[in-house]
Amino acid sequence: MLISFEGIDGCGKTTQIELLRERLNREKLPAEVLREPGGTDLSETIRGILLNPDIMMNPVTELLLFSAARSELVTQKVRPLLEQNVIVILDRFYDSTVAYQGFGRGSLPIDAINQMNHVAAHGLVPDLTFYLDIGLSEASERRKDMEEDRIERAGQSFYERVREGFNYLADNNERFVRINAAQAPEQIHEAVWRRVSALLS
Amino acid sequence: MLISFEGIDGCGKTTQIELLRERLNREKLPAEVLREPGGTDLSETIRGILLNPDIMMNPVTELLLFSAARSELVTQKVRPLLEQNVIVILDRFYDSTVAYQGFGRGSLPIDAINQMNHVAAHGLVPDLTFYLDIGLSEASERRKDMEEDRIERAGQSFYERVREGFNYLADNNERFVRINAAQAPEQIHEAVWRRVSALLS
Repeated sequence: MLISFEGIDGCGKTTQIELLRERLNREKLPAEVLREPGGTDLSETIRGILLNPDIMMNPVTELLLFSAARSELVTQKVRPLLEQNVIVILDRFYDSTVAYQGFGRGSLPIDAINQMNHVAAHGLVPDLTFYLDIGLSEASERRKDMEEDRIERAGQSFYERVREGFNYLADNNERFVRINAAQAPEQIHEAVWRRVSALLS
Repeated sequence: MLISFEGIDGCGKTTQIELLRERLNREKLPAEVLREPGGTDLSETIRGILLNPDIMMNPVTELLLFSAARSELVTQKVRPLLEQNVIVILDRFYDSTVAYQGFGRGSLPIDAINQMNHVAAHGLVPDLTFYLDIGLSEASERRKDMEEDRIERAGQSFYERVREGFNYLADNNERFVRINAAQAPEQIHEAVWRRVSALLS
């Protein structure tokens, strides 16, 4: 089973992913968390390039580098784990590319991004995608003590378009579960767990 | 004017590119040579990853990294130079991706590679592409004193498929000029110059 978590930076993904992993462990279900971009030596090298605020690049280059990191993560980690019946939890997957590089940057038409995502993910599709939906001012408030990487520096109107992208995806994909991220972490976790345990049984 | 040189490693591209650049300079025509992958700081970083024999990657990742390096080269160097009426000579361009990553590695169907190339080149198409066609044993002989990079280590049957790819491209693209690379360098240069000067006038 492949589960992805999506949402704008500051939405609380990390907390929810940790709560889900602990819950799965208590249920004696093997689970592994992987983050995008990253997760293999080469993908972490690419991550370092992508998030470095001192490196400028055009939006198409950014899209291609995210895709390269993803391609390697899928073949080196995600697919082998799924074949061993490990539940894989992804901290972002290609939906983030639609939201950030598509809606946010306007790098390419969404159809072309979907094709690129299909190639980079080697055809893999998550079984469930949790979208933690949060208001922009709340997310910005939660991020205010963190140092911003290159992507996060893009500003408020960028984040408005990214959020619009996630909403578009949630409206158009059966696998998406939209959760109000303004709720308490335990409440959100219960909503996540209901869907995961339903899928498990 | 955008001119690319293609062919398997050892075909004599570097010599011909240098001869063409000198000839253009003598004619007082501004010309710049750029190599793929490379040509910008970020693209050279990606080149270092791609050619490092110690880094393994799947063929789709390789395709995406070549494309990322290309995208950056096109927007940072090639397009601005063309806008200043500089003649740009490319030591490899996306035809190499069709031959190496398509025919050689079998990463993706050729249609999908063509789409990827269109994206990565931001729609740019060379005016002329010189394909220096050389036999595999001759090319291998010429390469024997060079240290092999990761791509060049792929072996003889890989190079057979790559050469098949270049022949396919030369048979199907008007902009391709196929030249027998077994000729003397001066003879090859005269064949190149005839086509370039025809296009210039």
